[in-house]
Amino acid sequence: MQLGMIGLGRMGGNIVRRLLRDGHSAVVYDRDPKTVAALVEAGATGADSLEDLVAKLEAPRTAWVMLPAGAITEETVKQLGDLMAPEDTIIDGGNSFYGDDVRRAAELRPKGLHYVDVGTSGGVWGLERGYCMMIGGDKPTVDRLDPIFRTLAPGAGEIPRTPGREGRDPRAELGYIHAGPSGAGHFVKMVHNGIEYGLMQAYAEGFDILRHANAESVPEARRYELELGDIAEVWRRGSVISSWLLDLTASALAGDEHLEDYSGFVEDSGEGRWTINAAVEEGVPATVLSNALYRRFRSREQESYADKLLSAMRKGFGGHLEPKQPKM
Amino acid sequence: MQLGMIGLGRMGGNIVRRLLRDGHSAVVYDRDPKTVAALVEAGATGADSLEDLVAKLEAPRTAWVMLPAGAITEETVKQLGDLMAPEDTIIDGGNSFYGDDVRRAAELRPKGLHYVDVGTSGGVWGLERGYCMMIGGDKPTVDRLDPIFRTLAPGAGEIPRTPGREGRDPRAELGYIHAGPSGAGHFVKMVHNGIEYGLMQAYAEGFDILRHANAESVPEARRYELELGDIAEVWRRGSVISSWLLDLTASALAGDEHLEDYSGFVEDSGEGRWTINAAVEEGVPATVLSNALYRRFRSREQESYADKLLSAMRKGFGGHLEPKQPKM
Amino acid sequence: MQLGMIGLGRMGGNIVRRLLRDGHSAVVYDRDPKTVAALVEAGATGADSLEDLVAKLEAPRTAWVMLPAGAITEETVKQLGDLMAPEDTIIDGGNSFYGDDVRRAAELRPKGLHYVDVGTSGGVWGLERGYCMMIGGDKPTVDRLDPIFRTLAPGAGEIPRTPGREGRDPRAELGYIHAGPSGAGHFVKMVHNGIEYGLMQAYAEGFDILRHANAESVPEARRYELELGDIAEVWRRGSVISSWLLDLTASALAGDEHLEDYSGFVEDSGEGRWTINAAVEEGVPATVLSNALYRRFRSREQESYADKLLSAMRKGFGGHLEPKQPKM
Amino acid sequence: MQLGMIGLGRMGGNIVRRLLRDGHSAVVYDRDPKTVAALVEAGATGADSLEDLVAKLEAPRTAWVMLPAGAITEETVKQLGDLMAPEDTIIDGGNSFYGDDVRRAAELRPKGLHYVDVGTSGGVWGLERGYCMMIGGDKPTVDRLDPIFRTLAPGAGEIPRTPGREGRDPRAELGYIHAGPSGAGHFVKMVHNGIEYGLMQAYAEGFDILRHANAESVPEARRYELELGDIAEVWRRGSVISSWLLDLTASALAGDEHLEDYSGFVEDSGEGRWTINAAVEEGVPATVLSNALYRRFRSREQESYADKLLSAMRKGFGGHLEPKQPKM
Repeated sequence: MQLGMIGLGRMGGNIVRRLLRDGHSAVVYDRDPKTVAALVEAGATGADSLEDLVAKLEAPRTAWVMLPAGAITEETVKQLGDLMAPEDTIIDGGNSFYGDDVRRAAELRPKGLHYVDVGTSGGVWGLERGYCMMIGGDKPTVDRLDPIFRTLAPGAGEIPRTPGREGRDPRAELGYIHAGPSGAGHFVKMVHNGIEYGLMQAYAEGFDILRHANAESVPEARRYELELGDIAEVWRRGSVISSWLLDLTASALAGDEHLEDYSGFVEDSGEGRWTINAAVEEGVPATVLSNALYRRFRSREQESYADKLLSAMRKGFGGHLEPKQPKM
Repeated sequence: MQLGMIGLGRMGGNIVRRLLRDGHSAVVYDRDPKTVAALVEAGATGADSLEDLVAKLEAPRTAWVMLPAGAITEETVKQLGDLMAPEDTIIDGGNSFYGDDVRRAAELRPKGLHYVDVGTSGGVWGLERGYCMMIGGDKPTVDRLDPIFRTLAPGAGEIPRTPGREGRDPRAELGYIHAGPSGAGHFVKMVHNGIEYGLMQAYAEGFDILRHANAESVPEARRYELELGDIAEVWRRGSVISSWLLDLTASALAGDEHLEDYSGFVEDSGEGRWTINAAVEEGVPATVLSNALYRRFRSREQESYADKLLSAMRKGFGGHLEPKQPKM
Repeated sequence: MQLGMIGLGRMGGNIVRRLLRDGHSAVVYDRDPKTVAALVEAGATGADSLEDLVAKLEAPRTAWVMLPAGAITEETVKQLGDLMAPEDTIIDGGNSFYGDDVRRAAELRPKGLHYVDVGTSGGVWGLERGYCMMIGGDKPTVDRLDPIFRTLAPGAGEIPRTPGREGRDPRAELGYIHAGPSGAGHFVKMVHNGIEYGLMQAYAEGFDILRHANAESVPEARRYELELGDIAEVWRRGSVISSWLLDLTASALAGDEHLEDYSGFVEDSGEGRWTINAAVEEGVPATVLSNALYRRFRSREQESYADKLLSAMRKGFGGHLEPKQPKM
Repeated sequence: MQLGMIGLGRMGGNIVRRLLRDGHSAVVYDRDPKTVAALVEAGATGADSLEDLVAKLEAPRTAWVMLPAGAITEETVKQLGDLMAPEDTIIDGGNSFYGDDVRRAAELRPKGLHYVDVGTSGGVWGLERGYCMMIGGDKPTVDRLDPIFRTLAPGAGEIPRTPGREGRDPRAELGYIHAGPSGAGHFVKMVHNGIEYGLMQAYAEGFDILRHANAESVPEARRYELELGDIAEVWRRGSVISSWLLDLTASALAGDEHLEDYSGFVEDSGEGRWTINAAVEEGVPATVLSNALYRRFRSREQESYADKLLSAMRKGFGGHLEPKQPKM
């Protein structure tokens, strides 16, 4: 099947490679001609503009936009909307806000254009492991594109089947689902990332407690010097908390248990924030997911105004100024 | 009434002064003879040792220990237990753990000694405003000491009476209560401090949101430059969230809205921690109180190992190292 | 000064009454003619439609909308925008989202109309105590309306002045501020409510811990039966955590310490939710404020799907089904 | 190697079975003679009392206690301490508090007895998958018992090796570690369970958000009806959040997405609580782990006193009584 790809960064480029390997064809475009050239070498057809890309696709066309969420994706979808013809399909495979999907699909519908949103997980490992995909859009279009999704997905592999799934959608076992109408793909992916933050924070706090098991505030008889790398490793083996994130933790700790190379300045993407907004809108108590996000916010502050205000209040009733610089 | 006071720091010294002003007498001791001399000048009888203090008190003696919680208080109570005679009373007015009160009272009982724990709130303002006191111990002893407590308490003052309290313990309206048996005074004071942390954190977060109302991540049309000092002031006037802590906040912000003098390194006392332990023991979800404590823990970390581990996991699946030093 | 008031519920009606008492005049309208009649009796001029109200106001007109936030307020502001003339002013005194203020002000500006948003705190106590007001809008308009705000505000009263405020906006000491341009009034009021949730939750958790001080999971020697009403009362007297919310708590507990009349089904308004959204947008860790909101969400769930999923996972690895109905 | 096992519940019984299968021998005792008989049939030697068990073991003896943490374990260890001889070893494989391990080891040391604490994860799956073990005690004893641990552990299996672990303790890759001196095994297991609570809560909240994606409070254009079972399944396939707990979630949802059989009454074990106590003692902000525990506390309350107090305060300032029974 033929696919147009706009945006040939690590994700977009690897998606094209995985498609080419499985016998699909691709027309590719990126503002950086070097990335286009590299994929042409791998078997893709190069385009030097959006117009050129649309011209080189056979109708009904499918153009996958794999760009940073926000203004660039918005503008690109808009331009494609002007260039493409009825029955063509635009896929947004980036990390867009699901509300934007709903709006775009409604804007493109009068032109006879289809819009599909695809949330993907798998990061840099996708080329090798395949991409876990959550897809939103109308059923006929998602069905038409099935060969693309099937190739990109990890497939059943060696992961044991979940008992009791007989009669349910077999695509889930291959690593992709049609989650629902427009926006549903990115909505599910968004919650996925919200959960990811919570899981990561749970491990991070646990290892923080292990690391400080030798704190001076602990009575000496109960202080421990623990090997965090070995602990992460042993938990990978038969414990209740084994996971891929734990595998990554074990890798990091095998290298340097003190994590000296890391700043502890932790970014967050829009998806963690939108998850909280969605929970608030739904009235769902997302206690742990919100706290995980807030710990990231806090990680990026050198000095917290909130903390200073606490000190100021303490001075107000206790009469003492807290020391200025003795942080641990 | 006569009282012995051990520990003449800001709290102990002012308690003695407030008692003397109201016609009580006091025998005072401190390791620092200068503080003893200052109170002798104010009308107290000085002592140069615990033995001397006990000797100068008339039976039944009452000795109030006003020292830092922990080893010093423990040792002093023990020594007094050896020096004093049946029917004498030891008061611990510091910030001791209520479990220690229970144990000490049980240890002193066979000697015929009474033990009273007094949690006090009011800080540096107590001499002027009076001390809010939460008292634990056996009823006859607490009743016998009532003249002391009545003098130290703020009294009814101009604070409006709570409707519907007719027939209830009138002491509460004067600013002191007999909370229950040994430990009950410190237990109630402990929860008081736990609440204090929660209240302070709520204000701190609110002002943090106000202060960042001009953040770049906010769409320009909705950015505000707010006068935090005026906001604190206006909330003191008829709003639902007026409080003494807000008064202190307004004072601090009237001086310097940027709080440049404060480090944002926020201490916590044992009481905030014991509150969490008590909640966990009782099975009560102390969500906000715990989070307030944790924000203080976090305020004292320059670098968080938990945060570093998040960065390490992110590198594991995203392939990028987070920047080393751009904190805000 | 003359004011038109649309919406004569408890808030709108009392605002008019407070204005009339101080010599202002008012034209009033409500869909319920009985509330109009009641205020006419108190000295206001009645109107039987928005058109009538606008016709009875002298230019430059000022119409205060005091209706539930959302569709009704939106529609009313829109209609007024069509009926009023250049230099007239529309005030939204309800609990609108500040983003709506920004939009409405921009929509009305081309017509020469002014828009002012007023966040008010004080609830049912406002008629007597005055209204604490946070105002957004352009300076000339807010200045022009000053006589109205001055009358509605609580005034300096007996609340002690904050030291160090010399030279700052004197309105804050009277109980109202001009917080900034459109939306700033509701933004500050929103954060006020966010803080309110946090404060309330802190008290609620503290009293929950006190109430369960006799839990069976606590070793018998450290169990207490505490008088919560007396504790609330004593904390009003000289303690660090005294506040108006504590006064209300003491009142409630004086009536019935067991709070049997209350369901524990706790509503939340839009403002608590918008506060979280604002914090997320700004990147401010609003830990305690969010958790307070979530506890309200949770309070309204009879059964939590999240909890059921925990039980399901526990069955998965532990093999046991948790009991179906033994909640406390 | 020969092992005595006291306590033949699911865990103790399966441990013996796994040992017998691999050529070890066992003397077994339980208060319920039927469980003894069943294991005798499987090849173990039965004992009808602790004395009998000790008598049937060859010196140096090793007795593994696999009983509920608390009084029963405490009493059994004490009795064994009286029955056994110098150089014998007592293993506590239950879920004891690590502080108890420290104390017991110190009590047994003067008698020449060794004490080993083993935290195990793996639940009902251990017989088949092996037990992930975290071991505390003195090195010679832990080394002497290595054949036992090696048999019980899962072994390397098909789990990929963590790169960079060359030269580190190879036991971790087989699924067991010697974590440190007495108590270290249970300490690490305790933190494991603390993390487990956090991970579970993160998944539970995410699925709660997915389930309520069709809430009435959400604008209609953005409401989704999602297939939670398919979503759990697809996330098992190449996503960042794949884990064993997610496998269990997918199984549960494959059966009944509505989880009708579950009450949502979620128990917690001592370990989740001790983790919080340890974090508080160390001064580590265990934000997410604590909140996960508190959500379990809350899950077991039919009515929350804290929530009622919120309602009471709301009535105080808003004048309205919240509805008595409309929970969702």
